[in-house]
Amino acid sequence: MTEKTNTQNDSVPNRAKISRRNILKTAGIGGVGVILGASGLGGLLSLNEGNAATADRKDIVPFYGKHQGGITTKTQNHVYFVSLDVTTTKKDELVKLFKDWTKAAALLSEGKAVGELSSNEFLPPKDTGEAAGLSSANLTITFGVGPSLFVKDSQDRFGLKQKQPKELVDLPKFPLDALDEAWTGGDVCIQACADDLQVAFHAVRNLIRIARGKAILRWAQTGFQRTKQADPKSETPRNLFGFKDGSANPDVKSEKQMNEHVWVQPGDGPNWLVNGSYLVVRRIQMFIEVWDRTTLKEQEKTFGRYRDSGAPLGQKEEFETLDLKKKNEKGEYSIPVDSHTRQSHGDGSQKILRRAYSYSDGMDVKTGNFDAGLLFLCFQRTPSKQFIPIQNRLAKMDKLNEYTSHRGSAIFACLPGAKQGGFIGETLFN
Amino acid sequence: MTEKTNTQNDSVPNRAKISRRNILKTAGIGGVGVILGASGLGGLLSLNEGNAATADRKDIVPFYGKHQGGITTKTQNHVYFVSLDVTTTKKDELVKLFKDWTKAAALLSEGKAVGELSSNEFLPPKDTGEAAGLSSANLTITFGVGPSLFVKDSQDRFGLKQKQPKELVDLPKFPLDALDEAWTGGDVCIQACADDLQVAFHAVRNLIRIARGKAILRWAQTGFQRTKQADPKSETPRNLFGFKDGSANPDVKSEKQMNEHVWVQPGDGPNWLVNGSYLVVRRIQMFIEVWDRTTLKEQEKTFGRYRDSGAPLGQKEEFETLDLKKKNEKGEYSIPVDSHTRQSHGDGSQKILRRAYSYSDGMDVKTGNFDAGLLFLCFQRTPSKQFIPIQNRLAKMDKLNEYTSHRGSAIFACLPGAKQGGFIGETLFN
Repeated sequence: MTEKTNTQNDSVPNRAKISRRNILKTAGIGGVGVILGASGLGGLLSLNEGNAATADRKDIVPFYGKHQGGITTKTQNHVYFVSLDVTTTKKDELVKLFKDWTKAAALLSEGKAVGELSSNEFLPPKDTGEAAGLSSANLTITFGVGPSLFVKDSQDRFGLKQKQPKELVDLPKFPLDALDEAWTGGDVCIQACADDLQVAFHAVRNLIRIARGKAILRWAQTGFQRTKQADPKSETPRNLFGFKDGSANPDVKSEKQMNEHVWVQPGDGPNWLVNGSYLVVRRIQMFIEVWDRTTLKEQEKTFGRYRDSGAPLGQKEEFETLDLKKKNEKGEYSIPVDSHTRQSHGDGSQKILRRAYSYSDGMDVKTGNFDAGLLFLCFQRTPSKQFIPIQNRLAKMDKLNEYTSHRGSAIFACLPGAKQGGFIGETLFN
Repeated sequence: MTEKTNTQNDSVPNRAKISRRNILKTAGIGGVGVILGASGLGGLLSLNEGNAATADRKDIVPFYGKHQGGITTKTQNHVYFVSLDVTTTKKDELVKLFKDWTKAAALLSEGKAVGELSSNEFLPPKDTGEAAGLSSANLTITFGVGPSLFVKDSQDRFGLKQKQPKELVDLPKFPLDALDEAWTGGDVCIQACADDLQVAFHAVRNLIRIARGKAILRWAQTGFQRTKQADPKSETPRNLFGFKDGSANPDVKSEKQMNEHVWVQPGDGPNWLVNGSYLVVRRIQMFIEVWDRTTLKEQEKTFGRYRDSGAPLGQKEEFETLDLKKKNEKGEYSIPVDSHTRQSHGDGSQKILRRAYSYSDGMDVKTGNFDAGLLFLCFQRTPSKQFIPIQNRLAKMDKLNEYTSHRGSAIFACLPGAKQGGFIGETLFN
């Protein structure tokens, strides 16, 4: 045993820019990757790096930038979402954690390991290894901070109290909320999205490992979307009720719309959050067995849209502007008053960027039915003017409530992006 | 309301050969799919069918055949595995269920809905719709029957007692088993594997819906594998300990090996299971946080293989024959006596076809750690000569037991495949 045996595994080495692909390739040459010295390995890698990076560049979402990834990024197939409780009481340790996370997340986004895979057999490997050889799968990692990071049990935990935005407070209790502590709140969130669940899991696992002694898991939820449309033009994914979800989203390609609805702007509140966004998470259980016994007509009236096409009732195309005044031959509104679409839309002044995933967690032992539903994730500039009024309307009137139950809830301020050399959280902590 | 409103939703219509893709396309033309009569819709579909089928044929695994799919099929990215309890007491209802399941599974395998998506708005839709527009994603559906379908509480439930194979009995209790009833046993299993989790979920959900009044969910577990290797030559997936899993599998392309190790042969037992196989399922929790604190050397000695290359310790290539006699410079076996590889291998006479998936089910609330591990699925010709002796050795000696716990267990006889016009279970029930 050497002194190094005691080295903690909770930081990211500076020189760890090692491609998972190339480690594998190197090891493959002679099956002796484990006995190569770190410097020799580095030499080999730099020779190979160019090709591999070029070949896979289409799967890589850049980590550094004005905004964090995973918000306006084209929705990937899988999410691994975790909420953490911060356990350290020291601000410098918290800041170190965000610095280490930033470096690790940047490496992971490029399909690289968070440290040498196996340079020293007398240490635990820096990277847990299950993503070795995998492509980066458009991995994005998005960090957010919850209200309880600022003040918890009336304590100004890290001297950040005066920086807490007015908008970053616990959501009000909505009518019909049936929240379970096990799926609620958190000091920090990490949303890892990728087209490969193993890549997303690997990212979150390694980030939590880096947090050892500083933060612990509070809750975790995976989610999925369809992988491949048979018809590439039909992009809007379907939820587990069989309906398209997200038809009325603002356009992520419009900087104007994103600035209006999603990104926090100068003057909105504390400057540290400018170019960030607020994330509201709701774990919504869907009673799919009950839904499956209702008629198509009832289902379509509940949503206010046709199931097949996604078009608003009485209209023709999925992306048509809602015609809320249109009436049918009986003189009733085509899109019923209590329909999900009408109540979500309201007067049209509130828009949120939905980025939801379905979940399926085996059987609900209480009912014997599927424990399945929607991990509803939405981004916005001002929760008090966007998610909260929308959800107040929905909780009061939405006919869909007969088939769903909100079991988890949290709000986070997703930090602005970082520049290369900087770190996520820099504007908040400095 | 018409008389049809009372029609039960638990059977598959004969004429339901409707492509999900084309329904969507049809509805898209005018957004009026819902008001097209069934016959008109059928006409449109047959015009379109050819193109769509051709375009997607590479994602389709044929359902009918000598053997069921999902056994020697190249492992897909996701599994949705469910175990069911049969609630009907009538054999004819049970047989009807398998007939309906067969028809539905054949349609699902081709990327089709299990019935008209929306031909009659006064009925619940025959298909739940969330896979509309998705490609078939190599979906396979594999049905198995458990010991309790034959005899439960000493009762010969369906007059099948004399047909129960000697091999189809509850597994013995192995040392260290920590089984939870919630993940154990079942009368029938359905294994749905696909490259798209939404497609696998949709399949299982619709099959369970068809079973309404005849069978109910007992337990359900999703699993995943990596989606895409950066290096296509490196096929063996890695488990959540970062090691390759499945290196020593028999070759699914060798009919000889499959007949020797996987498919039940004439003379092995009752004829009805010839060309079928026994499936053993174990839900193995992996204590990844503990594992992550051990040194690479310890990890590699635990498996008996190098992490990076997958080669046996002291050897060079992943697929080399194990050299169990080789010793290192200290005179110890290179592949340690208590290593997983040596104990799994034994004298080499027992081989099973492993088809395992990783799982991650959020947080284990008891420990605050990940509830993650391996949904171990293995196929074999004779459990008493294959899985059982292997697991007896592993449970006694395997060093990996320090990091894992077997929490669920079941055994099923996977029925032989069906011919077009026949049904899965035909040889058992007739």
